[in-house]
Amino acid sequence: MYLSRYFRFCVQQSSHFLRRESCVQQKYSTAAVQPKVDSSFVGALKSVVGDTNVSTADAIREQHGHDESHHAVSMPDVVVFAESVDHVSKVSMLCNDNKVPLIPFGSGTGLEGGVNALQGGVCLDLSKIDQIVKVNADDFDCVVQPGVMRQALNSYLRDTGLWFPIDPGADASVCGMCATSASGTNAVKYGTMRENVLNLQVVLPDGRVIDTAGRGRRTKKTSAGYNLTNLFLGSEGTLGTITEATIRLYGIPEKTISAVCHFEEVSDAVNTVVSILQCGIPMAKLEFLDDTAIAAFNRFSKYDMTEAQTLFLEFHGPAYGLDDQFQSVKELVEMNNGFGLKQASDTDERNRLWKARHEMVWACTALIQGSKPYSTDVCVPITNLPEIVTKTKEMVKEANVLGPIVGHVGDGNFHIFFPVDHSDKETFKKVYDISHRMALLAMDLNGTCTGEHGIGMGKRDLLIAEVGEETLGAMKQIKATFDPNNIMNPGKVFF
Amino acid sequence: MYLSRYFRFCVQQSSHFLRRESCVQQKYSTAAVQPKVDSSFVGALKSVVGDTNVSTADAIREQHGHDESHHAVSMPDVVVFAESVDHVSKVSMLCNDNKVPLIPFGSGTGLEGGVNALQGGVCLDLSKIDQIVKVNADDFDCVVQPGVMRQALNSYLRDTGLWFPIDPGADASVCGMCATSASGTNAVKYGTMRENVLNLQVVLPDGRVIDTAGRGRRTKKTSAGYNLTNLFLGSEGTLGTITEATIRLYGIPEKTISAVCHFEEVSDAVNTVVSILQCGIPMAKLEFLDDTAIAAFNRFSKYDMTEAQTLFLEFHGPAYGLDDQFQSVKELVEMNNGFGLKQASDTDERNRLWKARHEMVWACTALIQGSKPYSTDVCVPITNLPEIVTKTKEMVKEANVLGPIVGHVGDGNFHIFFPVDHSDKETFKKVYDISHRMALLAMDLNGTCTGEHGIGMGKRDLLIAEVGEETLGAMKQIKATFDPNNIMNPGKVFF
Repeated sequence: MYLSRYFRFCVQQSSHFLRRESCVQQKYSTAAVQPKVDSSFVGALKSVVGDTNVSTADAIREQHGHDESHHAVSMPDVVVFAESVDHVSKVSMLCNDNKVPLIPFGSGTGLEGGVNALQGGVCLDLSKIDQIVKVNADDFDCVVQPGVMRQALNSYLRDTGLWFPIDPGADASVCGMCATSASGTNAVKYGTMRENVLNLQVVLPDGRVIDTAGRGRRTKKTSAGYNLTNLFLGSEGTLGTITEATIRLYGIPEKTISAVCHFEEVSDAVNTVVSILQCGIPMAKLEFLDDTAIAAFNRFSKYDMTEAQTLFLEFHGPAYGLDDQFQSVKELVEMNNGFGLKQASDTDERNRLWKARHEMVWACTALIQGSKPYSTDVCVPITNLPEIVTKTKEMVKEANVLGPIVGHVGDGNFHIFFPVDHSDKETFKKVYDISHRMALLAMDLNGTCTGEHGIGMGKRDLLIAEVGEETLGAMKQIKATFDPNNIMNPGKVFF
Repeated sequence: MYLSRYFRFCVQQSSHFLRRESCVQQKYSTAAVQPKVDSSFVGALKSVVGDTNVSTADAIREQHGHDESHHAVSMPDVVVFAESVDHVSKVSMLCNDNKVPLIPFGSGTGLEGGVNALQGGVCLDLSKIDQIVKVNADDFDCVVQPGVMRQALNSYLRDTGLWFPIDPGADASVCGMCATSASGTNAVKYGTMRENVLNLQVVLPDGRVIDTAGRGRRTKKTSAGYNLTNLFLGSEGTLGTITEATIRLYGIPEKTISAVCHFEEVSDAVNTVVSILQCGIPMAKLEFLDDTAIAAFNRFSKYDMTEAQTLFLEFHGPAYGLDDQFQSVKELVEMNNGFGLKQASDTDERNRLWKARHEMVWACTALIQGSKPYSTDVCVPITNLPEIVTKTKEMVKEANVLGPIVGHVGDGNFHIFFPVDHSDKETFKKVYDISHRMALLAMDLNGTCTGEHGIGMGKRDLLIAEVGEETLGAMKQIKATFDPNNIMNPGKVFF
């Protein structure tokens, strides 16, 4: 296990944010950025995108200086609304030439401070470039611009019988989901963004426009050259700006069954998940909610569900076979002391259930008046789930804080949504410590400090612990190659 | 469509190998290599790995100077057999310090000359590092060293009820399959190597040893940092040497149905494939063999199959639902004028069928005495398959050569296995021209010049045409960053 005792010591002793420099030597440092956003620079931006597409208004800057995470707002100096790829390219060149930070902005629904402008600079809002360029229904793919939102795409697709199943909960932009390598409730069946993007158009910091797989490519597989698509996927805006994505679509399943079941013990619930996966039952969703989460769920979404450890399950498929799958799961639930297995009676009940699941972060926040969500995610190999979930619950109990656990356990991935009053420094520190200890525990169990939220500004120290100095060095070499002036979203992923 | 008229002109006029320099300006050139393999260097190698692990014998060098492709042998100056990752690291450093080419060698089963030592140097044979390090059966993953062969792994796994389904036909090494981003007959259900590797240990040219996802990581998903795993996957030994892979495993399906059916017209066979995929039937294998291929198949493997356009099909799954899937396919076959749909009666018949399918390249070669195989592969979006397969057959007919078509059409991927007497320059040129025109046609149809064989030395010009100068430049930036002395498999992927 790669974790020096000293590093662990650092983590445990830290008050809020670790000073990475004291723990790990920085081998491949990136150039320091000296923002130079003055009126002349703002004028140059206006001459590229037009006066009305540039704003230095406080309200606009504030709106673009944060995502949905607990991280404090860091406002950019100026917000630019791009209307074309040419705008993105020219603004990139301008920033690069003047060594001004550039932060691509999709929908601001991230959870690790990915868009916070830590060093000021230009926030590049892409929401106006919003066309669904092409739907190739018979090939199960489509091409979207960065302003296209996930839900809008699925509404647009409805008549074709197709959908884009990757569903992180929030109504994120599809290209933003590429940038953070998002996934969510359906990943157990359909994979994450990493498995569902065929090509990306990316504007590099120096203004070059590339198509990672080549312009127009949309094959299910390729062995032609380096896999740049997956390099930019999950790079969190630190290597370039994603301006178009060619993504895979799927047929809307002929039949869907949603169900809920309960357990007294966490270990029984999680062992049921392990058994289901080991039996090869092709689940579409396998979600865990602990008793605290269900209490929040009931209160916020007006349910009266049994307040126990709970699994939400969903099966997608052709009509044949699906009832047999449900029957197999029923047997496994019973073998693991589960009870109350119940199917949603109709589409309305199913939709209500999943809408409530997606609102869990707000349901948890509503548990404490004046609180905001503090969420974190980790991911482990499936057999290590019982241990980490159980130990995490113990940490939460010991610290005497509220920490509902909710997770895409079919992938070994789970979250805590802490409701925290940010002015309550003591609780904030407790929550921060639990998050870090959870991440370190995940790593001890062959897991990762983030299954889907990304590193952003919140987990930079954990990334070092997770991949080690040598691998981090290789990542930084790539960063330095594409972004030698360190203008792209500086301070994210790496210190 | 990105292809200049001039480039097309170049391709059409070329005799054998295009001079890329005349077509596309080289923006990010890599340093020229001046091999320095003298007795002192060989002595230094021996001091690292031991005398018996270094060979300059002609037979050994010849054996390591080619793969299974049509490309002429290019012998390395010396062959080194590494026995440990430390050996790989030290040999890499030695080569890097002396600017000597280093070519990682797995099993030599590639099809685009990936291991041919174009500039001499050191061939690093990894077959002695051959441990299955760990099988985490309950997590469905395992860790293998570079000498572990695909079939040996599956034999080892048999008692666990698990298997590694990626099957390129040849008995390749698993890490070699990582290097070329292999796939094969099962990709339609299980994906390619890109979707099935959780971590790679890689030795960089300067001797650094990294784990792409961090040492010991083996989660189904992660958003922690750049996706280095997928950068090294398919990099064909040009960025580093893969010394360990953590891969996904799957449960051996409870039930398997294999079947064969025939068609008079290519378009009917391919349209059946398109319909099956559009209906969302979760096929495990969807293979096309044209009439010429079936004739070769009958002769070589002692079958008496109808010599028509043919589909080989396979269904994997739990017992329930599989017969319904077969029934749905039967209806689609009949709707598309197919005939003779027949299930393999038992496991032996099924195994014989797929063994014969895997030997197709040799069956095709046996059609012309004294010939060797010349194979190529392209991949297109599924709806463009009928057009490209039909046009390819016309090209083959026009040129009056033998060119059986065999393909993983469920992915839009297919091959021609030309049997060619390499001393017959006229036929060789015809075959080369058809391969290139096929690749260009694939690109016109939003496809790729290689779905699974890689670029190697054979498709470097096509890669430029496929991804464009800017994207190629970005790939070369990565190459120059990790391998500034251009020692890693020089002359592959790029000129």
